[in-house]
Amino acid sequence: MSKLTKRADNYSEWYNQLVETGGLAEHSAVRGCMVIKPHGFAIWENIQSQLDKMFKETGHQNAYFPIFIPKSFFSKEADHVEGFAKECAVVTHYRLKNAEDGSGVIVDPSAKLDEELIVRPTSETIIWNSFKGWIKSYRDLPLLINQWANVVRWEMRTRLFLRTTEFLWQEGHTAHATREEAIIEAEKILDLYAEFLEEYMAVPVIKGIKTASERFAGALETYCIEALMQDGKALQAGTSHFLGQNFAKAFDVQFADKTGKLEHVWATSWGVSTRLMGALIMTHSDDAGLVLPPKLAPIQVAIVPIYRNEDQLKEITEVVLKLKKEMEALGLRVKFDDDDNRKPGWKFAEYEMKGVPVRIAIGPRDLENGMCEMARRDELSKELIPLDGAANTVNEMMTTIQDNLFNRAIKNREENSHSTDNWEGFIDIINNKGGFVYAHWDGTDETEQKIKEATKATIRCIPLDSQEEDGLCVFSGKPSKRRVLFAKAY
Amino acid sequence: MSKLTKRADNYSEWYNQLVETGGLAEHSAVRGCMVIKPHGFAIWENIQSQLDKMFKETGHQNAYFPIFIPKSFFSKEADHVEGFAKECAVVTHYRLKNAEDGSGVIVDPSAKLDEELIVRPTSETIIWNSFKGWIKSYRDLPLLINQWANVVRWEMRTRLFLRTTEFLWQEGHTAHATREEAIIEAEKILDLYAEFLEEYMAVPVIKGIKTASERFAGALETYCIEALMQDGKALQAGTSHFLGQNFAKAFDVQFADKTGKLEHVWATSWGVSTRLMGALIMTHSDDAGLVLPPKLAPIQVAIVPIYRNEDQLKEITEVVLKLKKEMEALGLRVKFDDDDNRKPGWKFAEYEMKGVPVRIAIGPRDLENGMCEMARRDELSKELIPLDGAANTVNEMMTTIQDNLFNRAIKNREENSHSTDNWEGFIDIINNKGGFVYAHWDGTDETEQKIKEATKATIRCIPLDSQEEDGLCVFSGKPSKRRVLFAKAY
Repeated sequence: MSKLTKRADNYSEWYNQLVETGGLAEHSAVRGCMVIKPHGFAIWENIQSQLDKMFKETGHQNAYFPIFIPKSFFSKEADHVEGFAKECAVVTHYRLKNAEDGSGVIVDPSAKLDEELIVRPTSETIIWNSFKGWIKSYRDLPLLINQWANVVRWEMRTRLFLRTTEFLWQEGHTAHATREEAIIEAEKILDLYAEFLEEYMAVPVIKGIKTASERFAGALETYCIEALMQDGKALQAGTSHFLGQNFAKAFDVQFADKTGKLEHVWATSWGVSTRLMGALIMTHSDDAGLVLPPKLAPIQVAIVPIYRNEDQLKEITEVVLKLKKEMEALGLRVKFDDDDNRKPGWKFAEYEMKGVPVRIAIGPRDLENGMCEMARRDELSKELIPLDGAANTVNEMMTTIQDNLFNRAIKNREENSHSTDNWEGFIDIINNKGGFVYAHWDGTDETEQKIKEATKATIRCIPLDSQEEDGLCVFSGKPSKRRVLFAKAY
Repeated sequence: MSKLTKRADNYSEWYNQLVETGGLAEHSAVRGCMVIKPHGFAIWENIQSQLDKMFKETGHQNAYFPIFIPKSFFSKEADHVEGFAKECAVVTHYRLKNAEDGSGVIVDPSAKLDEELIVRPTSETIIWNSFKGWIKSYRDLPLLINQWANVVRWEMRTRLFLRTTEFLWQEGHTAHATREEAIIEAEKILDLYAEFLEEYMAVPVIKGIKTASERFAGALETYCIEALMQDGKALQAGTSHFLGQNFAKAFDVQFADKTGKLEHVWATSWGVSTRLMGALIMTHSDDAGLVLPPKLAPIQVAIVPIYRNEDQLKEITEVVLKLKKEMEALGLRVKFDDDDNRKPGWKFAEYEMKGVPVRIAIGPRDLENGMCEMARRDELSKELIPLDGAANTVNEMMTTIQDNLFNRAIKNREENSHSTDNWEGFIDIINNKGGFVYAHWDGTDETEQKIKEATKATIRCIPLDSQEEDGLCVFSGKPSKRRVLFAKAY
């Protein structure tokens, strides 16, 4: 297995190599579209399954809406079409035919659609068109729907997981009787996302709201969670939007309240995507490959036998199968790798590259001593542990590693979070240190834009927990009531 | 809740009404595309989750490939393009823009793709293009990949679940070192599908192979499972294809065997789709609504309290919560419906329509007597059972209902399976009775086509368990070695 470029030498190249060598994803023959490979997809399935559980526990139901959206639907919400029209895949025909000159297949010009269809970049419009039929009375509210789907946004510059033309995601779409309920929902989901990232992905996040210029197209308020990657760049990991009555009005969705009065309903939408895979990789992984938090690792423990002959293998196998059973009884996901085509060294490198949290190695001498070797992926450390009780030791190690990854990420964020009150300091941090910068901002689009042009740093969010604090805008010197979070971002 | 048309009066209308009224699916604003509603999607999730488990237990891994396929890929396998070109959604542009006359958004003519993209109708070509990079040596084989995805086939006549422009499915794609291994895989999956339909969906199936004219475009052999619906029509519920080396040759996928010699690999592909929902509905449901096999029912037990005042509700709730806990400890999926906005009669009708296998009703007098009322959805029957031990009684009832549904379906199939040796008899059965007809066929495309034109019946399959038996073709009178299975089909 080839070694990766070191992070310190070229972070971006390290990332690309790791994604491919670690068996996570690769570029496809279609510009900007990725193939998610089995190991990557298994991690995504674990992400999906936990999030899905959390959505259902909070009363949401899954459904499925068409991939195609009639072009006219887009125009119904003005901001929405403005935000998405420039990156749409458009279906114009529904048939191919053989070229008459025998040169292959061509689009059949006679099969042109009367109205073009857009491959969904997000599903507000097609879903609100259905909601119109589903919502009549206050009894039908709240309506709490989620969809797991693929979406397409025609991106010009793409990177595996971080920005791809097609990606997988979930999109929640909810309808409520009042403004307050909708806002509570949008905030509840933000908390749910933050809980998932911190407790399962071991990725600490800052919760906040976006500035007007960074809002979702059609939203009154966009809540977000922002994470800091190892290279000092921010990554927006999830968003939750309070949509007001914009879509209800665009699609004329009204409900009768208890008195029979008709009112437009209030909406939210929210989503996380395969982009989370990028956040996971860039928070924990190292120069030796992927590092996975145990809660999301498809294989948590890999057991490698070290043997010279069949008899040794047989003895080891007997002990390992018993150990594996004990581990599985504790809920651990275990692989016993007795593949005879590969040497132990190759297997060690493979599990290191793929981020398996714990590797156990057992040879004949270990058996004699009643011991085995336990290697931790997070710290790349090894120790001998007694076979007796090894299942429990390894099980506890899962918690240790999960916590260690989270604490390391918190520590990295603390070391790379800065506060500054002057423009020179701001530029210095952004250009030379990177990381999060907490600074005062005068609240105008204009200043936000100028700071971006000057430094490539954007306002990631106005943190929800920020304190009121009188200050002067770091760029314009105008008064400001609170610091906002700046960073360069993915 | 409105009553359904009776099956005997108009089966097709009954089906359409049930799918919509039962909360399973509805038509969308996009021609031929459906919206899968929450109750329908919850059933599909149960189907998915069990199949996914069975795929993984047999060594398959999930992955994800792009939704778009470059047009040129289709042309690489001649039969394949012939089979799918006529029903393709084609993406030709990647941007919209505002019309200059302010009339709304239009396709931006300057954003025309150099090569058109096809929305996948099936993924052999894009997947084999990836497999080329994944397969180098015999060590990389077998490669056993599955994908859960949406696909699009531009159907002219559509019906919810049975035939829609977009549908959800899984598609397995495997690569093997030898012809024999690939055939074994295709047959193993056929058995897996049959096991799933019979044991989980309670839908009995006939396993067989398709005639040459009904084969998948690009396959050397297509295996299938065929089920008989209540109205005497057949439904193809799943297919598994032995693809030979066709796609390996089209995409030049070769592997080095142990001696280093390069050979093209052997392939299979196989799939089941949301069409299974149609099979489920049309096998078990009745004039009162949906009937679900317990193994796939999102809610297995609904408990409805009957009360006149808060005190009664409180007493009942106490008992029910204990009962619910006991049931859940046995693994049952239980809903306690204490919604005060709806009357018990409304709830009974709702759970009947939605196919909940067992409904429990408890009133104050039941409490006094230590009893509750248990209603079976499959037989629409009721009985009083002791509250003490009710969890176990209901749990056993799940097995009883699951078995009853399967046995009823078997009985229906037996009563509607016929054998005939003469053309008049054949026509009479097809026109007046429907069902499966076992008859001799001379093995030619020509006869198959003529029988179809004369009767609309097609050869569903050559059953795998059919016995050799000398006979004369029911249409041409030419010699035949075995009976094949005819029916009108969905």
